[in-house]
Amino acid sequence: MTSATAPRARVPGPAVGRESRATQSSLREANLALVAATVCASAEPLSRADVAGRTSMTRSTVSRLVDDLVGGGVLDELEPGVVTGRGRPATPLVPGAGIAALGLQVDAGFLAARVLDLRGRVVAGRVVDGAFVGSDPTVVLPLLAALADEVLADLAPGIRLVGAGLALPGLVSPSGTALLVAPNLGWADLEAGHLPVVGGMVPRVGNEADLAARTVAEVAPGRPGPLADFVYLSGEVGIGGSLVLDGRGMPGRHGWAGEIGHVPVDPDGPACPCGSTGCLERYVGRAALLTAAGLPPTASGRDLADAARAGEPSAVSAVARAAWALGVVLAGVVNVLDIPAVVLGGHLAQVADLLRPDLEEHLRTRSLSARWVAPTVTSAGEDPAAGASGAALRELSEVLAHPADWAGAA
Amino acid sequence: MTSATAPRARVPGPAVGRESRATQSSLREANLALVAATVCASAEPLSRADVAGRTSMTRSTVSRLVDDLVGGGVLDELEPGVVTGRGRPATPLVPGAGIAALGLQVDAGFLAARVLDLRGRVVAGRVVDGAFVGSDPTVVLPLLAALADEVLADLAPGIRLVGAGLALPGLVSPSGTALLVAPNLGWADLEAGHLPVVGGMVPRVGNEADLAARTVAEVAPGRPGPLADFVYLSGEVGIGGSLVLDGRGMPGRHGWAGEIGHVPVDPDGPACPCGSTGCLERYVGRAALLTAAGLPPTASGRDLADAARAGEPSAVSAVARAAWALGVVLAGVVNVLDIPAVVLGGHLAQVADLLRPDLEEHLRTRSLSARWVAPTVTSAGEDPAAGASGAALRELSEVLAHPADWAGAA
Repeated sequence: MTSATAPRARVPGPAVGRESRATQSSLREANLALVAATVCASAEPLSRADVAGRTSMTRSTVSRLVDDLVGGGVLDELEPGVVTGRGRPATPLVPGAGIAALGLQVDAGFLAARVLDLRGRVVAGRVVDGAFVGSDPTVVLPLLAALADEVLADLAPGIRLVGAGLALPGLVSPSGTALLVAPNLGWADLEAGHLPVVGGMVPRVGNEADLAARTVAEVAPGRPGPLADFVYLSGEVGIGGSLVLDGRGMPGRHGWAGEIGHVPVDPDGPACPCGSTGCLERYVGRAALLTAAGLPPTASGRDLADAARAGEPSAVSAVARAAWALGVVLAGVVNVLDIPAVVLGGHLAQVADLLRPDLEEHLRTRSLSARWVAPTVTSAGEDPAAGASGAALRELSEVLAHPADWAGAA
Repeated sequence: MTSATAPRARVPGPAVGRESRATQSSLREANLALVAATVCASAEPLSRADVAGRTSMTRSTVSRLVDDLVGGGVLDELEPGVVTGRGRPATPLVPGAGIAALGLQVDAGFLAARVLDLRGRVVAGRVVDGAFVGSDPTVVLPLLAALADEVLADLAPGIRLVGAGLALPGLVSPSGTALLVAPNLGWADLEAGHLPVVGGMVPRVGNEADLAARTVAEVAPGRPGPLADFVYLSGEVGIGGSLVLDGRGMPGRHGWAGEIGHVPVDPDGPACPCGSTGCLERYVGRAALLTAAGLPPTASGRDLADAARAGEPSAVSAVARAAWALGVVLAGVVNVLDIPAVVLGGHLAQVADLLRPDLEEHLRTRSLSARWVAPTVTSAGEDPAAGASGAALRELSEVLAHPADWAGAA
């Protein structure tokens, strides 16, 4: 199979193809999606009666829909045996463990491949370090494909792979079929034909920060996280960004919104490979920040945090300068967007506790609305490959949006 | 009538109140709105047959709905007599000239009151210059009310006023009932009870730039302008901003998005009354820009354009510096939002032609996506009180969203 003829990203479900569904009721499709979303949104297993209560559908309708979803693997029934208040045994429904997606990531410092199931669990995965700044995609992508094959070989039998996504630190074409440019990798104009086939699919490409932000917006496929509105900043060699309002990404006109790493801190600041000067990533990108702290550029955010906590003067001043640079740019973002919550990812997550006091103070001083709603700064957690998880979450969200493709025939 | 008990902004229609409609078909409401929107969106008068064709409704259904809308004044029928291709006389439908709204504006340099009808025409209006920086709202608002009363006295008989809005250069409460702060006026915490009653209504408050941007997004109520996606910059003493995507404003979480005037050009720049430093409005606000050009702060953008075109060195360098400052901030906005079109209003519109070459060059250099979509700069035109027009447009949009309130009984 050549990459040109490989199916794209999402493979058709085994039950009912899109064509034959055209004559079926779109109402059934919408109701299947509603039931699947209701079960997936819940932190606790739900009974059929719970689903009926939350969806305002009758129990018999819900039962038919649940049967179809269970048949297609979109939902699982756990063992009955929990006794409800009325003494009847309830059959708890949970997202299906047999449906999963592959998430891939190429970062300046690592390659990642992982598989997430519909319950949001990482059921297989590997991250391998490397040095991919200014790298050759024709060398790196085969390495990624080999890593993906190893991970897929680890999968338990019976797990169905429904899609594959690839997180890249750059601008992606609006259709998700090509990379336009990833300045820090030195990659540009990468078409679908250049991408590896993994698990029988050409992965759908996405911006790393947009995909990583999904892991904050959704703690599991279809289950919202605690923040619905936030600006996500992804700290790597470059600085990616993503905007989330009401739990949904704000892509802009072409899907390129969120390039916060190229907002100027100081227009007379250092030159950036993007062609501009004084961009945020020249101040708080991984290498820039670690070098300013007197650490090797291969050190981690954790090393910086340790040095700053130990009172190492260059580390302390590097953290203070980073808080200032982030404050200047993020206050501008808050003023423009009116989304007064910032989530720091990547190496910035590892120093978030140290950045927070100064950064929140800069945001208060520079945001016009801070008197009414004070901006907040939180850490995204320290997952090194959140982009890979987000790429898998995006594919799984397609299953929840169109569960009829996976459910048994009507 | 005290302001506390005055009806808010939009007065109930004379035909059918909301309560009694509760039992009527919401389908009829949606269809009335669709017919009204179809006629208003068209640059040319439409026949009933045209409306039927564009809405996929039957001619008899359209005729019933049109009769109701004409009865309520939402649509007007022009004289038949235009002969269509098939030789039948068509009755052209146009937006109703008898429904209008009042738009008010308080700016640092003027007060405005104007009335727009559903066809988008200014049917009455006045703008009076003044000096309202650091002014007292208890003095200024009665002046505005008197101006509004004069304008309303000019209205032709038979015009029904359906709402009133007030554009202010500041942050407004999410509900539109109060001004939180307008730094350049020196106003803060202005509640509905402080607002004047005009035409029997307490005006609904809105941010001046958000309302002015409506005059770009809509050339008449419900008729889209040529740009669907743009960043609007309102040049006054301060610099307001507004974000429009797909023809709709992006308000952010609390309605405070678009404060581009307080994005820093240079964090070490001049102090701003907002508490930050180096804000864009310290560079390109009216007084800052004119003073830099060696002109009195009361001069106009047109005076600056004349001086720059005459080669006056301080004017030329002030324009170049303004293009640079705008380029730094707006490139950041384009990078964050992926909306690569900028519309300049107020005094900036008057120098837009002079700013454009340098500003577009700065935007190309500093926007990551400029290689694929080059950012553009256009002028909003030179209406001195676009905010007042936008305030009226917002009220009229309510009529189009809920025409059942105005149409005859079903």
